[in-house]
Amino acid sequence: ELQEFCTALNPGRTAEYMEGLTAAESWQVLLHAPPGLRAEIFEYFDLDRKLNILNFEDTTEAANLLAELPSDDRVDLIQELSESRVVDLLALLPASERRDIRRLQSFAEGTAGAIMTSEVAKLTEDLTVRQALEELSKQAEELETIYYIYVVDQDDRLRGIVSGRQLISALGNVESRLSDLMETDVIAVLPTDDQEAVAERVERYNMLAIPVVDQGRQLLGIITHDDVIDVVREELTEDAQRIAAVAPLEESYLRINLVRLGWKRGIWLTILFFAALLTAFALRQYDQELETYTWLVLFIPLIISAGGNSGTQSATLVITAMTSGDLSVRDWRTILSRELVVSCMLGSFLASLGFVVSLFVAPDSASAMVIPITLLAVVISGCMVGVTLPLIFKRLGLDPALMSNPFVAGIVDILGIVIYFNVARAVMH
Amino acid sequence: ELQEFCTALNPGRTAEYMEGLTAAESWQVLLHAPPGLRAEIFEYFDLDRKLNILNFEDTTEAANLLAELPSDDRVDLIQELSESRVVDLLALLPASERRDIRRLQSFAEGTAGAIMTSEVAKLTEDLTVRQALEELSKQAEELETIYYIYVVDQDDRLRGIVSGRQLISALGNVESRLSDLMETDVIAVLPTDDQEAVAERVERYNMLAIPVVDQGRQLLGIITHDDVIDVVREELTEDAQRIAAVAPLEESYLRINLVRLGWKRGIWLTILFFAALLTAFALRQYDQELETYTWLVLFIPLIISAGGNSGTQSATLVITAMTSGDLSVRDWRTILSRELVVSCMLGSFLASLGFVVSLFVAPDSASAMVIPITLLAVVISGCMVGVTLPLIFKRLGLDPALMSNPFVAGIVDILGIVIYFNVARAVMH
Ligand SMILES: [Mg+2]
Ligand SMILES: [Mg+2]
Ligand SMILES: [Mg+2]
Ligand SMILES: [Mg+2]
Ligand SMILES: [Mg+2]
Ligand SMILES: [Mg+2]
Ligand SMILES: [Mg+2]
Ligand SMILES: [Mg+2]
Ligand SMILES: [Mg+2]
Ligand SMILES: [Mg+2]
Ligand SMILES: [Mg+2]
Ligand SMILES: [Mg+2]
Ligand SMILES: [Mg+2]
Repeated sequence: ELQEFCTALNPGRTAEYMEGLTAAESWQVLLHAPPGLRAEIFEYFDLDRKLNILNFEDTTEAANLLAELPSDDRVDLIQELSESRVVDLLALLPASERRDIRRLQSFAEGTAGAIMTSEVAKLTEDLTVRQALEELSKQAEELETIYYIYVVDQDDRLRGIVSGRQLISALGNVESRLSDLMETDVIAVLPTDDQEAVAERVERYNMLAIPVVDQGRQLLGIITHDDVIDVVREELTEDAQRIAAVAPLEESYLRINLVRLGWKRGIWLTILFFAALLTAFALRQYDQELETYTWLVLFIPLIISAGGNSGTQSATLVITAMTSGDLSVRDWRTILSRELVVSCMLGSFLASLGFVVSLFVAPDSASAMVIPITLLAVVISGCMVGVTLPLIFKRLGLDPALMSNPFVAGIVDILGIVIYFNVARAVMH
Repeated sequence: ELQEFCTALNPGRTAEYMEGLTAAESWQVLLHAPPGLRAEIFEYFDLDRKLNILNFEDTTEAANLLAELPSDDRVDLIQELSESRVVDLLALLPASERRDIRRLQSFAEGTAGAIMTSEVAKLTEDLTVRQALEELSKQAEELETIYYIYVVDQDDRLRGIVSGRQLISALGNVESRLSDLMETDVIAVLPTDDQEAVAERVERYNMLAIPVVDQGRQLLGIITHDDVIDVVREELTEDAQRIAAVAPLEESYLRINLVRLGWKRGIWLTILFFAALLTAFALRQYDQELETYTWLVLFIPLIISAGGNSGTQSATLVITAMTSGDLSVRDWRTILSRELVVSCMLGSFLASLGFVVSLFVAPDSASAMVIPITLLAVVISGCMVGVTLPLIFKRLGLDPALMSNPFVAGIVDILGIVIYFNVARAVMH
């Protein structure tokens, strides 16, 4: 009846039903499932449960499980196991699987090689549709996807692709050869390509999977749609973290070591601290004004936050638009002029609010004008700085998200203070 | 030879080669391609080019094109055309296509219905594998994906799914029926479900496509992997915008109307303005201290930016971790205690930097202590506010990203001022 439990549902749902069990218990249940399905259900466990099972359950069974797992996920898991356990497990695997693991381990994190799987439907071009279908039906169980068939020559060089759709459409003529059906203009990536570039291609061409080839066009593996979604999420999360001045975590927030987390945040906080120190120096230049018109102090936080917030908005809009491909550096004229219009609208509105407030605080209505004028100037310069810096970073070939919002805000803080006291000087004279 | 140009390359690449042409010119080229391929290449044009062609080229040809486009994308395009043009075009379409368009138009943006396509491989359960393959080979050209076959009863109710993989594996036994092969535990969504929930399911279960059914389990359509990637990107971009206090744009940055853009930013800037106004009131309470110890003013921006930046970091980390499912509200104890440790580390480090600086500015080393004590307290409270507010929002069933960083920073600004002057009072007495 445990066997029935394992086979009745979608594997993902079966895994969810076991969430209440301990890792050891859920493994006992899994042992009732046939090996292929066992691996499928195991794939849906969370990382802790997976590692517990691989680390502490029977070595032979664990090695059998490893043999069944998709090659890309297997390598990620092995990386998290203890050195000695890995040695024990690998010893029990067939030499070919061991070689595959070593090969996939050799690619750096964040590259195409690190997310590709080696289980590919690889056929030679002289096969007929009938032969191809027969071959596929034998391999189907082991492959990650059979929906693209990669046609290779004797040296494993990628010659073309036949989609499952084309294969099915060709059923009327089962003696036609793959070489006649295949598309030869194949979009592929190198194993060293950045995973972000991989995701961009897959998104652009709406592919189910993208082949990874080496310089000599030898087919190394494929990257499938589900892993591409993970990359898109990972990269956008990284961007959001960079925008908030955190060096990308690379691990989940709850798992990352606290010293590492402190470092990834501290480095930026320190840089921002020194940037903010400049505001103290700037303020020092205006000690005369500060002494004479003490009421000006009350509005310092308000003014720098208005500048920071509008700059943050602009920077985020430009960064996210550039990442999703809606915007490129060539559009800079349009961006600047649109931003100028919007910042004038926003600045005037905040200025009018500020004027009403300052009427109550300033000694006379003439000096009250300092606040609205400053707000208008600060919002406009905040927006302009906010859109310009990411564009410059992009132009220099750097990641625009590195031009983090706190940094934009820091620059606008100083600008804000300089503007504020110069307006004050001019108005009060 | 133009025909050769259209067929030689991958449709996406063909479209790229035409980027230098005007919309009218590229349409002239496309007319040399067979209708199916024409639509495929057209799909890769950018929005402006697509709209130009649909609006201004020959009505009959444009209607033929519409008939060939995937049903989900077609509806999105029609929405952007002028009312009268739509009437002309629809009149030229077969009644069934017109009905399909009207039906898909009825679903609200952001729901599953608005991204689903109606071209589904739909078969009945009594078919054998052989019959299914024959049927598929007829339909293959028109369907978005043939890799999942949806098995329905006479009333179009979804009974199960057969994957292309299972179909191929069953080639050894072509007389077996779909009803024996199909998986009956089908994961599906309702047309009214939020697109974010759709993406979560597809990601969780690594699906190529997810079926959309109504309350009575009638199959309405499917949502394919490529549209899911678009949703993931859209939702994460929205979150990044919310985090930066911009109401999500819903359109691309370069296309959005400037008044709308001003509104989407102005609403938040105004709220934040009133929040920042509280800092002015707070400062007013400390006019005594401000007059006696004027040097304290110099550090106001530095202190509130240190608090704001650390709060921003914490909030972003918690929000992004919650969105990617790494974190849930139940983890709040762990989150708070980890954050406490990290914020003490970060706070102490900034405090030591601040102490060195203040030694040069403060009148004596005793009063110089005000700065490091304040920095420590501000960073700790910044981090705690930063993690707590998104958790509370999530707990209340609201979008945690709504608890934008500028808002966190605003609250921390006020806290910072209160802490600063109370520490000053305590130390200088
Ligand atoms: Mg990997
Ligand atoms: Mg796409
Ligand atoms: Mg994966
Ligand atoms: Mg994978
Ligand atoms: Mg990256
Ligand atoms: Mg990036
Ligand atoms: Mg600030
Ligand atoms: Mg739509
Ligand atoms: Mg997934
Ligand atoms: Mg789409
Ligand atoms: Mg689509
Ligand atoms: Mg949404
Ligand atoms: Mg959302």
